[in-house]
Amino acid sequence: MNKYFLLIALLASTVNLSAQQTTSNQKKVAALLAKMTLEEKVGQMTQITLGVVGTQVDGEINQEALKNAVVKHSVGSILNVTNHALTVDQWHNLLTKIADEAKTTRLKIPVLYGLDAIHGQTYTLDATLFPQNIGMAATRNIQLAKAITKVTANELRASGVRWNFATVLDCGRQPLWSRFPETYGEDVFIGKTMGAAVIKAYEEDGLDKTTAVASCMKHFLGYSASRNGKDRTPIYLPEIEMREYYLPQFKEAVKAGASSVMINSSIVNGIPVHASKYLLTDILRKELGFNGVAVSDWEDIKRVYTWHHVASSPREAVAMCVNAGVDMSMVPYDFTFYDLLIDAVHKKEVSVQRIDEAVSRILMLKMKLGLFDNPYPEESAKANFGKPEYQTLALDAAHEAMTLLKNQDEVLPLSKNKKYLVAGPGAQSISALNGCWSYTWQGKDEQWYPKDSKTILQTIEDKVGKSNVVTTTEKGFEGIKNFDGDALIKSAKDVDCIILCLGENAYAESPGNIADLALDENQQALAKAAISTGKPIILVLTEGRPRFITNIEPKMNGILMAYWSGKKTAEAIADVLFGDYNPNGRLPYSYPRSSGEIVLYDRKPAEDIREVFNDDIHTGYNPLFAFGTGLSYTTFAYSDLKLSTKNLVGDEKLHVSVTVSNTGKIAGKHTVELYTRDLYASISPDMKRLRAFEKIDLKPGESKTVKFSIDKNDLAFVNAKLNTVTEPGEFTVMIGDLMESFQYK
Amino acid sequence: MNKYFLLIALLASTVNLSAQQTTSNQKKVAALLAKMTLEEKVGQMTQITLGVVGTQVDGEINQEALKNAVVKHSVGSILNVTNHALTVDQWHNLLTKIADEAKTTRLKIPVLYGLDAIHGQTYTLDATLFPQNIGMAATRNIQLAKAITKVTANELRASGVRWNFATVLDCGRQPLWSRFPETYGEDVFIGKTMGAAVIKAYEEDGLDKTTAVASCMKHFLGYSASRNGKDRTPIYLPEIEMREYYLPQFKEAVKAGASSVMINSSIVNGIPVHASKYLLTDILRKELGFNGVAVSDWEDIKRVYTWHHVASSPREAVAMCVNAGVDMSMVPYDFTFYDLLIDAVHKKEVSVQRIDEAVSRILMLKMKLGLFDNPYPEESAKANFGKPEYQTLALDAAHEAMTLLKNQDEVLPLSKNKKYLVAGPGAQSISALNGCWSYTWQGKDEQWYPKDSKTILQTIEDKVGKSNVVTTTEKGFEGIKNFDGDALIKSAKDVDCIILCLGENAYAESPGNIADLALDENQQALAKAAISTGKPIILVLTEGRPRFITNIEPKMNGILMAYWSGKKTAEAIADVLFGDYNPNGRLPYSYPRSSGEIVLYDRKPAEDIREVFNDDIHTGYNPLFAFGTGLSYTTFAYSDLKLSTKNLVGDEKLHVSVTVSNTGKIAGKHTVELYTRDLYASISPDMKRLRAFEKIDLKPGESKTVKFSIDKNDLAFVNAKLNTVTEPGEFTVMIGDLMESFQYK
Repeated sequence: MNKYFLLIALLASTVNLSAQQTTSNQKKVAALLAKMTLEEKVGQMTQITLGVVGTQVDGEINQEALKNAVVKHSVGSILNVTNHALTVDQWHNLLTKIADEAKTTRLKIPVLYGLDAIHGQTYTLDATLFPQNIGMAATRNIQLAKAITKVTANELRASGVRWNFATVLDCGRQPLWSRFPETYGEDVFIGKTMGAAVIKAYEEDGLDKTTAVASCMKHFLGYSASRNGKDRTPIYLPEIEMREYYLPQFKEAVKAGASSVMINSSIVNGIPVHASKYLLTDILRKELGFNGVAVSDWEDIKRVYTWHHVASSPREAVAMCVNAGVDMSMVPYDFTFYDLLIDAVHKKEVSVQRIDEAVSRILMLKMKLGLFDNPYPEESAKANFGKPEYQTLALDAAHEAMTLLKNQDEVLPLSKNKKYLVAGPGAQSISALNGCWSYTWQGKDEQWYPKDSKTILQTIEDKVGKSNVVTTTEKGFEGIKNFDGDALIKSAKDVDCIILCLGENAYAESPGNIADLALDENQQALAKAAISTGKPIILVLTEGRPRFITNIEPKMNGILMAYWSGKKTAEAIADVLFGDYNPNGRLPYSYPRSSGEIVLYDRKPAEDIREVFNDDIHTGYNPLFAFGTGLSYTTFAYSDLKLSTKNLVGDEKLHVSVTVSNTGKIAGKHTVELYTRDLYASISPDMKRLRAFEKIDLKPGESKTVKFSIDKNDLAFVNAKLNTVTEPGEFTVMIGDLMESFQYK
Repeated sequence: MNKYFLLIALLASTVNLSAQQTTSNQKKVAALLAKMTLEEKVGQMTQITLGVVGTQVDGEINQEALKNAVVKHSVGSILNVTNHALTVDQWHNLLTKIADEAKTTRLKIPVLYGLDAIHGQTYTLDATLFPQNIGMAATRNIQLAKAITKVTANELRASGVRWNFATVLDCGRQPLWSRFPETYGEDVFIGKTMGAAVIKAYEEDGLDKTTAVASCMKHFLGYSASRNGKDRTPIYLPEIEMREYYLPQFKEAVKAGASSVMINSSIVNGIPVHASKYLLTDILRKELGFNGVAVSDWEDIKRVYTWHHVASSPREAVAMCVNAGVDMSMVPYDFTFYDLLIDAVHKKEVSVQRIDEAVSRILMLKMKLGLFDNPYPEESAKANFGKPEYQTLALDAAHEAMTLLKNQDEVLPLSKNKKYLVAGPGAQSISALNGCWSYTWQGKDEQWYPKDSKTILQTIEDKVGKSNVVTTTEKGFEGIKNFDGDALIKSAKDVDCIILCLGENAYAESPGNIADLALDENQQALAKAAISTGKPIILVLTEGRPRFITNIEPKMNGILMAYWSGKKTAEAIADVLFGDYNPNGRLPYSYPRSSGEIVLYDRKPAEDIREVFNDDIHTGYNPLFAFGTGLSYTTFAYSDLKLSTKNLVGDEKLHVSVTVSNTGKIAGKHTVELYTRDLYASISPDMKRLRAFEKIDLKPGESKTVKFSIDKNDLAFVNAKLNTVTEPGEFTVMIGDLMESFQYK
């Protein structure tokens, strides 16, 4: 029996390739592996940052350093960080040099390049940026999420990059977390359906095609649940909660064919996830059946020793993590991982079998990506960069993300024949419309944005004419100590309405850590100045996470949540404000009132505190804006909620239909959401859970019957034994303002 | 074999009685149980509130209602709630009526009365109130904690009450929680040592003596860890965390002989603790060996159905909770528990054996308390009420609680020959010095406080003379919308210094829920007015939990944390401010800067975030005041830290000594604290853990050598398998500014 038989069997479950291709690739991988030295294998498991082989500016490469990495250390992968986005040609040039160098190695194994294209291809100049995941979740539009993903894949591949560290599948249940905007919000169902659809969209064309890239599930597991809200700080998650709210997204993404996974940097219940065999092997591999490449996050194997102190030496950290299930180490600054892992294998701390398993996965991914056939940037892919229709799609996505939270006395849409003050730090900012991972990591540096990017001020001027718009001096969020409330009051003197643009500037990861969710005092002061004018105020929020506006909200006549919605954010805002687009986004999280009142929509009944004797505080689920809030310029009515049965048995389908009518005067899109509630269960049941949604488009006076079908799996929960079960009993189906009950047996 | 043999064996581990007494009591209980009907047994398991049998005012009893409860339903226990404290004689009168009624029952089983005497006997007029647990934790004085406990026991027993629902053993790791002041703060070691000492002090004289009462461990388990900080809202605790930080206090209290336990009202990881056989039987009974009475909290068995929805009927809730291990139900308004439990036994949903077990525990407790010998309030105990020395002790306790947090340029102590403005809502409040459970549940109603209670204003006038003191109009915290900053500024015109009294008024349980820990804007405005005067400001905080003062702290010259320290709080504050007492309290929690920066002193290394690129936020452990902060008017120096060995082996003791010298000019008490750190472990090790402390008293120039001895148990932690283990490796001992390392093998 060939000694690689087991390995071939191991690789047999690989997705996205025909059975024939798979077998062929498996044989090639096994044959290649048989020729490799330990050093060559460990090199494949090593990922370094571009800075090790170049200057991080303009894609310049230091040939000697490149040789040291690729030839001497056989590194399998290089990742961004460039300081800023490069041109398509710069990318081709850079990646060609790397591919050339790899050709000079003994086995000519190509290098896999990966980077973070989070909401469009972050790191190519003039790439099309779309809404962050949080905004896409607001669209509730799976097809739209797939469409923008395919553009990202095309623009990555056009730039020569075949591996994308996306999408973030962490559930956004801690709004203080600085990566909250990268999540699909607080709901599990949105996260798993949209997340899996995006994973599939990246890969489904076939990884050897120029329209696809390898995706990456981030960050396995629990990363977003940091107790204190700071990035990469400890997570405490009972396993029942982890399985109920954080694991399903990964389960669906594995089914959708994800090629790789990135690991949570922090500790869960005291154990670094990178060192957790339980999470990385027992759950991820055995239970979820994932067979792709597991890559560490930035420097995280080292940190198992230096930060988390569960290994008492750097080598022990390396051995622990590789044995736990990490296939590739994002080292990223040096070759210590390479040296230490070789040493650990020699000392029998890591088996050759485990090394072979990891390297096979890496080689298999490279094979699937076609890198063995052509390791160079594909010239033909260039044509897929920057197509005009991407701009249209960016506008579609930004439009559908726009979430109208308040429209007192139908103050919106605004007339194009009045005078406006467009004020606040968001009014003249590009970065605050795009957020993290926008041509730079932090997204703050506006010099790298496309020249045709527009600010809110500009798009409003386009709507109503420059002569009808005044503004104030704030240009962006930096130097916020100078916001001038008096200037705002003066500027507002002759206008009919103030459009006040507040929120957050761009940030990513740790630099986005904040002391609390309060809107900074300076912005609050500006809001108070606006309020003092007595003019109607429309608040436009461009922000990655919900900053408290509880104090000022009562005096805002209209509130539009724009998130960070990418290239066309300003256009979409203006279209909504002036009635050229009928908003239909729905809030993908519960907008809290204060730090002590963060309660999610799928709360336990005990959150709806009944025992209260204090009128000063809001109790139960009483956010400023509830999950799913999203107003329209038309009105929708629900009727005829029908269940196919009142007694659902076993694996039967429950068919649910409801009629939705546009009862207003203009056309509008609308997402119909189906929630269920389990009335009694062995685990205190959530008050409601989203189980299905469908977005429809209705002309004035038009009605549609929307049909859903759910089964016992949609009603299941994780029980005390950590099994996912559906217990018999009474359930409620809730759609819009309608409700029906049924029994499950 | 006698059918009660098993029961007798079961009761054999009962503590606090000689072996002979125990056996005798066991036989009596078994004999009595043999005579009881199911109805009589279930009656014993039923606890109702006083309101069911009386008016809750002045201890008035409705004889007919009493007969219905005691005779018809055989209720085993009645609990407060009276609307306010009663006189000793009113208590005797009330309890005599109940005892009389019980005498008319078939088996003449006495009724056990219980109430919440939390920091002194809450519910007797003129009882002596001491610091809340949070203030006692600041004293770091175990003997003092025992002494005040014995006074509480005496004043309870003098009032005829033999069962106290105290002490709270919940670990105070969520400062937003409204019961935070009832905790011993964030540290496990303080909680378990002081908590167990208090439990022992309540009971050690023997429960049949007039100087003791039955204690109650509250609230098993995890109650204080509410995620959103609201009282009785869901808790999510990985078991490893629960065992590391929340269980040890109960383990020690069981060892100390606790007679009863009260159950956490909420859900932990989705399961109501009242319905958790795992927590109430497997852990509490089998693992901890607890054999006393488990009583529900207020209405909580009903709520397993009505709130938590894990039972689908009220009867199922009753059966679940009794089967899980609850012995007595604080129903408390009706007899549904009685009816439903009888029904459940008839339907075989609860076994008679389980009923017998519960009833035996209840009868055994009554037996130990001497209620079978004399169910009436003990006349002889009356003499133990209100002794003059209790007032001295109250002052001692308040003195030692006082925690000086800041003393810029030695602004304190203040001269008695200058002029002061004593301002702020705390200046003329009694309730804000005492807090929850003070003559009323909420403690707000000042009419019930002893007439000789003093405000801060009064005690300062006593120090420096009325002519040297001016004040403002705020009288307490209610109606806080009227704080008058301008009046403060005017009043400050001619004074040398402002003593600004801010914080919180009294609150208990749910009414103490707040939206966040921010100090209310009105108090902040008052502080800003004070700052605007340019005068030195001494901030005196009387508060149950840390309210954010981050904005105003830089302008406060001195800050004294007074907690809610009971009857003599104002005297202790004035003594410290004017140098008649040298402060020595140490903060029992980490005073946070903001809601996003709540990091505890025993944090994981990953909290000390290294990867930060944002200068605006505080990172790692950077509270406004660290755990253990407590300044003195003298100075202490540490030297000669010595370990008995550098290589600790097995069960050996590590002897640690250190010399502490008073290097200042006045005498002072000082708590020497020994911390350890485990450098590497299989669970990311806490940065430091308090393992021992000793309070000493040093004259100027005096030195003492303080000796500690610890062993492997003091170095242990809960590992991934949930075992408490000590792993070999390097440890650090830290005392004061000194540090030594050793190896454990």
